[in-house]
Amino acid sequence: MTIDDDSAGVEHLLSRPIRGTMDGEGYGAWRSFTDPDAVPLSFGFPFPDSFPLEDLSEAVETLFTADPDTALQYTGPGYATSLPEIIAGRARERGIDCTSDQVHLTNGATHAIDTVCQAFLDPGDLVVVERPTFMGALRLLRNYAVDIEGIDVDADGLDVDALATTLAERRAAGEALPKLCYTIPNFQNPTGATLAAERRERLVELAVEYDFVVLEDDPYGRLRYDGEEPPSLRTFDPDGRVIRVDTFSKTIAPGVRTGWIIADEPVIEQLRRVDAGGENRFTRGVIAAYCEDGRLETAIEGLCAAYEPRRDRMLAALSEHMPPGTTWSEPSGGFFVWVTFPEGIDTEAMIDDAIAEGVTYLPGSSFYSGDRGRRHARLSFSEADPDAIERGIAALSRAVRAAMDPVEAGE
Amino acid sequence: MTIDDDSAGVEHLLSRPIRGTMDGEGYGAWRSFTDPDAVPLSFGFPFPDSFPLEDLSEAVETLFTADPDTALQYTGPGYATSLPEIIAGRARERGIDCTSDQVHLTNGATHAIDTVCQAFLDPGDLVVVERPTFMGALRLLRNYAVDIEGIDVDADGLDVDALATTLAERRAAGEALPKLCYTIPNFQNPTGATLAAERRERLVELAVEYDFVVLEDDPYGRLRYDGEEPPSLRTFDPDGRVIRVDTFSKTIAPGVRTGWIIADEPVIEQLRRVDAGGENRFTRGVIAAYCEDGRLETAIEGLCAAYEPRRDRMLAALSEHMPPGTTWSEPSGGFFVWVTFPEGIDTEAMIDDAIAEGVTYLPGSSFYSGDRGRRHARLSFSEADPDAIERGIAALSRAVRAAMDPVEAGE
Repeated sequence: MTIDDDSAGVEHLLSRPIRGTMDGEGYGAWRSFTDPDAVPLSFGFPFPDSFPLEDLSEAVETLFTADPDTALQYTGPGYATSLPEIIAGRARERGIDCTSDQVHLTNGATHAIDTVCQAFLDPGDLVVVERPTFMGALRLLRNYAVDIEGIDVDADGLDVDALATTLAERRAAGEALPKLCYTIPNFQNPTGATLAAERRERLVELAVEYDFVVLEDDPYGRLRYDGEEPPSLRTFDPDGRVIRVDTFSKTIAPGVRTGWIIADEPVIEQLRRVDAGGENRFTRGVIAAYCEDGRLETAIEGLCAAYEPRRDRMLAALSEHMPPGTTWSEPSGGFFVWVTFPEGIDTEAMIDDAIAEGVTYLPGSSFYSGDRGRRHARLSFSEADPDAIERGIAALSRAVRAAMDPVEAGE
Repeated sequence: MTIDDDSAGVEHLLSRPIRGTMDGEGYGAWRSFTDPDAVPLSFGFPFPDSFPLEDLSEAVETLFTADPDTALQYTGPGYATSLPEIIAGRARERGIDCTSDQVHLTNGATHAIDTVCQAFLDPGDLVVVERPTFMGALRLLRNYAVDIEGIDVDADGLDVDALATTLAERRAAGEALPKLCYTIPNFQNPTGATLAAERRERLVELAVEYDFVVLEDDPYGRLRYDGEEPPSLRTFDPDGRVIRVDTFSKTIAPGVRTGWIIADEPVIEQLRRVDAGGENRFTRGVIAAYCEDGRLETAIEGLCAAYEPRRDRMLAALSEHMPPGTTWSEPSGGFFVWVTFPEGIDTEAMIDDAIAEGVTYLPGSSFYSGDRGRRHARLSFSEADPDAIERGIAALSRAVRAAMDPVEAGE
């Protein structure tokens, strides 16, 4: 059999959205921002000691003893089957009206977001995102060949007034209106900002008025170190247009990669259809067994007690070390601080020098759909221990001062 | 806030393919064909004693001891990271040229199929499937709003000559040609048929000639009870158009829901982009630790030794009990026997009576995209023990005879 060179390979058979978006960076391109000798402030990795190895081992034993015939089967009663109700109960404790039939389990939050995208998005649809926002969501959205409109974030989260203005202008101009708005209301990735309660209500009102879906991504909500939790966007939802995503990745461990979607039943029914056949009952059973006896709640208290001093240390070190003209967010929870450097700093250009000084971060450009964000960086305080965080911020400060005009750097 | 009744709900915001296919049965509708008091011949469930609970518990301990910092992290070295090479090595042992860079891990085979569908299929594309074929694949394909052309299966698998004729006729008539052909070459679900080696080569030649992708789904290939394994379709692939899917669901357990795709690297790159962020490193690490010391190969030998007498008992019981005019396939491996009942039998109409007699099966219609297959049933010998299989077939025979014309039933 001879092959015409022009026909070799099958890229030309890929779907139109995938073919149309093949040239950009792949999902995970940001993983290059790492170095074994640098303090890791790049990624939202939980610190290794946070992993509940012993409790999960015990949960495996509990699961296999209780459900020997069904723990590893396709379906059947047992711990895995009880997980949706465990999740629904925990949602209700946070004020979210929820039954187990309104819970669809996924393989983590990103998979959950992807499932919602596949169910709702056609090529050319308009999606509103926070600007900046989670790089994983941006990369996923690109696979659906949608148009993206970024709306700025301030200390109170998504600027809902700016969104209202944009929507009104689009309507007046006869332009496309969004089908979906993706938001991370608590300790936003990357800014750490939390969406104010009144903005939450207003965002849902806009969703009703302009007929779009709100995708509420809340992986960090339980990791709050100060203040009161505002109500979930779902609590303002009049007609099933808020779809909520959450995960155990930050409260148990990323490696169990189990998340969920909370939505009204007609939506859940379609999401289940889109997302068929990937049910890891082993992990789900282990998680359900682990959640018994309040172990998860105790673990979350321990995590908050470990993350809070990391955050405090990072904020104190920024105050101590950063050159004038540098500003940063002060998150009440989650993993991330968003830094804005003095004018002239380019965090993409600076990354190699920063690594040489002994610290990594994620350049702000990772969190924008266009070429923006080069004065910013996301710093994560989740992985390094407090002393390392201090060293990392000092190293970052040296890199920034070296990149600055000497006068402005105060030297 | 008041809601116009007409705008309540968000179904109208679902994507065009999903909205266009909402009315059919959902994925998993076939799960209703079950009954606690009936011998379970419906589903491809491994028998419960097959689950390697103790070895997996040990693998958890091994994993947590060896990789305490990375087993539950997003990324990092360790057992989970070694799994693609373990899979590539096992593929090479079966004659498939493969490196770990050509392996993409998924959450089971169905998820793998779905990933390929998302990467390649646009609405309106034509997909060729075996007729009958795996009901899960039919349901997934429906989500992509593609047209489906079924090609008959005989004792040697997909009728490749019939496919060639169909392709030539379509080309001559200026009709759409397929973008993808989905095939289960070994112990096909539901017929148990294995695609003959010369047909495999011919199928790939047709794929080149008519420029489509071949999706080779091989969940059962390692569970062979007689004869020699024909070469994987990948071994005939001249230019990366055969994409291979496999899974640990049948060789370890469904509950670990871990599968993989083997394809050329440019395809893998796009599949990784489509299927981002759902990496269950915990399970992947447990599987990699479990695979050490030849445990998986030993387990597969044990599974074959347990399934072969089940198959033999089912075939013998069919010979002993079934009324004249009933025929069935004689699979060399896998889980399934495909039965064709005498004319006039409707396996959908008969299911309640069969359950009352003490047996369940899957009506043949589950495996067709149109209203076909009512004279057929799929019987699985994977779940019940041999004595129960014998009882189940006797019960099925009673139900069939009761549904037949008394003269034809030989009464």
